[in-house]
Amino acid sequence: MTVVALDIGATKFAAGVVGLAGEVRDVRRVEVPRENVWEACRGLLLEVVEGGLVGAVGIGSAGPIDVRAGVTGPLNIPEWKSGFPIVAEVRGLFPGAAIRFAMDGACLALAEHHLGALRGVANGLAMTVSSGIGGGIIADGRVLVGRSGNAGHIGHIVVPGWDVPCECGGVGCVEAIASGMSSVRWARQQGWSGDTGMALAAAAHAGDEIAVAALHRSGTALGQAIASAAALLDIDRVVIGGGFAQSGEPLWAPLLAAVARHARLGFLRELTVVPSRITNGATLVGAGVLAAGHASTGIAD
Amino acid sequence: MTVVALDIGATKFAAGVVGLAGEVRDVRRVEVPRENVWEACRGLLLEVVEGGLVGAVGIGSAGPIDVRAGVTGPLNIPEWKSGFPIVAEVRGLFPGAAIRFAMDGACLALAEHHLGALRGVANGLAMTVSSGIGGGIIADGRVLVGRSGNAGHIGHIVVPGWDVPCECGGVGCVEAIASGMSSVRWARQQGWSGDTGMALAAAAHAGDEIAVAALHRSGTALGQAIASAAALLDIDRVVIGGGFAQSGEPLWAPLLAAVARHARLGFLRELTVVPSRITNGATLVGAGVLAAGHASTGIAD
Repeated sequence: MTVVALDIGATKFAAGVVGLAGEVRDVRRVEVPRENVWEACRGLLLEVVEGGLVGAVGIGSAGPIDVRAGVTGPLNIPEWKSGFPIVAEVRGLFPGAAIRFAMDGACLALAEHHLGALRGVANGLAMTVSSGIGGGIIADGRVLVGRSGNAGHIGHIVVPGWDVPCECGGVGCVEAIASGMSSVRWARQQGWSGDTGMALAAAAHAGDEIAVAALHRSGTALGQAIASAAALLDIDRVVIGGGFAQSGEPLWAPLLAAVARHARLGFLRELTVVPSRITNGATLVGAGVLAAGHASTGIAD
Repeated sequence: MTVVALDIGATKFAAGVVGLAGEVRDVRRVEVPRENVWEACRGLLLEVVEGGLVGAVGIGSAGPIDVRAGVTGPLNIPEWKSGFPIVAEVRGLFPGAAIRFAMDGACLALAEHHLGALRGVANGLAMTVSSGIGGGIIADGRVLVGRSGNAGHIGHIVVPGWDVPCECGGVGCVEAIASGMSSVRWARQQGWSGDTGMALAAAAHAGDEIAVAALHRSGTALGQAIASAAALLDIDRVVIGGGFAQSGEPLWAPLLAAVARHARLGFLRELTVVPSRITNGATLVGAGVLAAGHASTGIAD
C-alpha cells in the first residue's frame, strides 16, 4: 500500500511517497495554475502513486483551513480562497484510503517533532519565517490542532513598537513587521533599494546601516512574539525554518536578545531557540508523518 | 472515600470535600502564616477530612510550579518560594490516595470547562484578572499542562504601547500594565489618590478622567493579549474572572474593542470573550475537578 504526502503551498503543490522511516521520496512539484487548480493537484497525485493502491494520504495546507469540514482556503489561491473540499476530493480519488489533513504549520511541528529539533521535546514550537510567518505547536506530546485546525498562527501575535497594518486586517502582528516581505518593505521605506529578503540579509552582512536596522527591528519583534508564546505554552524549544530565518547573525542576535529580555519566568530558564535543520520541504515531510498516522498527530482520519 | 480539593493561594489556603457532581462543600480557609506554612496547610486538610479515608486529593497552586517533581514555589510565600514538595507531603499525610497537582490557572480552566463558560468548548482560555493576571488553556478538549505545569501564563504575554518593567524581570508584560495593582499604580502616577482596583472602577463609573483612562489602558492591553493568544491557540471562547475583571464597562468596552481590532483572522470570527460566572473560589472548584479525575484533566496521578 502506498502512503502519500501532499503539500498545498500558496504557489506550488508538492507530493511524494512516504517511506517506512518517514522519509518522503519521488517528490514531484507543480506550479499552482490560475484556473483548474484541482485538476493540477489531481494530476500530481496520480503521477506520484503510479497506479499503486493508496493506503493513506497526509495533506498539509497553507491556511486558513477548516479541519473538521476538510476544507482548505489558502488566501493566495483565488480559485480555492473561499473554500475547497480537499479531503472529499482526495477521498474520491483514492476510495478507502485514510485521509489526514492539517495546516502547514502543524505539519512543520510534526516534521520537527519526528525528525528534527523537537525530537524528544513534549512542548515546543516550530516556526517558519519567510515571505510570511507561520508555525505549529507540540503541546503535551501532541500537535495542537485548535478549534478549526489553525492553532500555531504565531505570525499574528501582536508585538510592541510598530503600529503596522497587517494583511489579516489587524494591526501590529509580528508578520506585518518581521516577515521577509515586511522587512524588505520597511527597509525600502527607509531608502534601501533592494527587493528580496536574501538581498537584505546580504546587505546587512556587508554593513549597510538600513539593512542592519531592518534586521534588528525584525529580530526583536520575532523574539518578543516567541517570549509571549513561550510564557503562554510553557515550552522549552523553538525551532525556526524558512528562507528569511537564514539571515544569520544580523537577525538572530537581536532575536535572541529580545527572548532573553522578555522570557524571564523561572520555568523558561531552559528555553532554547534554534534554526531548523530540515532545509527543504518541511511541510511535505510533516504531511508524510501525518500520513503515516503516528499517535502524536492527534488528528483523526 | 473522601475526595479533597486544596487551593494554595498566595495569601490563603482553602480546602473542601468534593461531591459527586463536582461541587466543593465544607470549605475551610486559613491565612498563610509567615512560618510553619506546611503545618497550617496540614491542619487545614485534616480538619476538612474529619478522619475519613481519603481516596484522592486535587491540588491547585499559585505558580510557578514544577508539576513533574510535585513541587510548588509561589513567589509570595517566602518559606515555599524556593520549592516545597507539596505532592510528597500530601501523599505522606494520606497514603494510598491519588494526588493530582496543577497550577491554579489550569484549575481555573478545568472549573470553567466542567461547570462554567467553557462547558462544551474544546478550545478555550480561562483568565483571572485581579491583583495579578493568570490563566489556563483548554486545548483539543484537555487542559494544557506544558513542560513544567506552567502553561497558561497569559499575564506574561508582551503587549504594545508601554515599556513597563514586570515583576517577572521582563518588560511590557500585560500583567505589568493591566492587573488591578498595575492599573492602580499607573492611575496614582497620573495623580489619582485611591488605592484599590475596586475604588478605581468606582471612580471610572463616576466619570473620573484618570480612572477612565487607566481602565481604558488596561482593557486595551488585555484585549491585545487575548487576540495574540487566540491566534496562537485557535480558540473560540475566553472567560475572565477575578475581582478586577468585575470593573464593568470602563474596562470591558476597550477590552472588546481591542479584541475586535486585532483578532481579524477568519477562524477567529466566532471568538467570544465573556465574564466568568464562577464568582467564588474557581481554583478550588477546579482542584475538585482535578481530584475527581476527569479524563480532560490530562494530568496523571
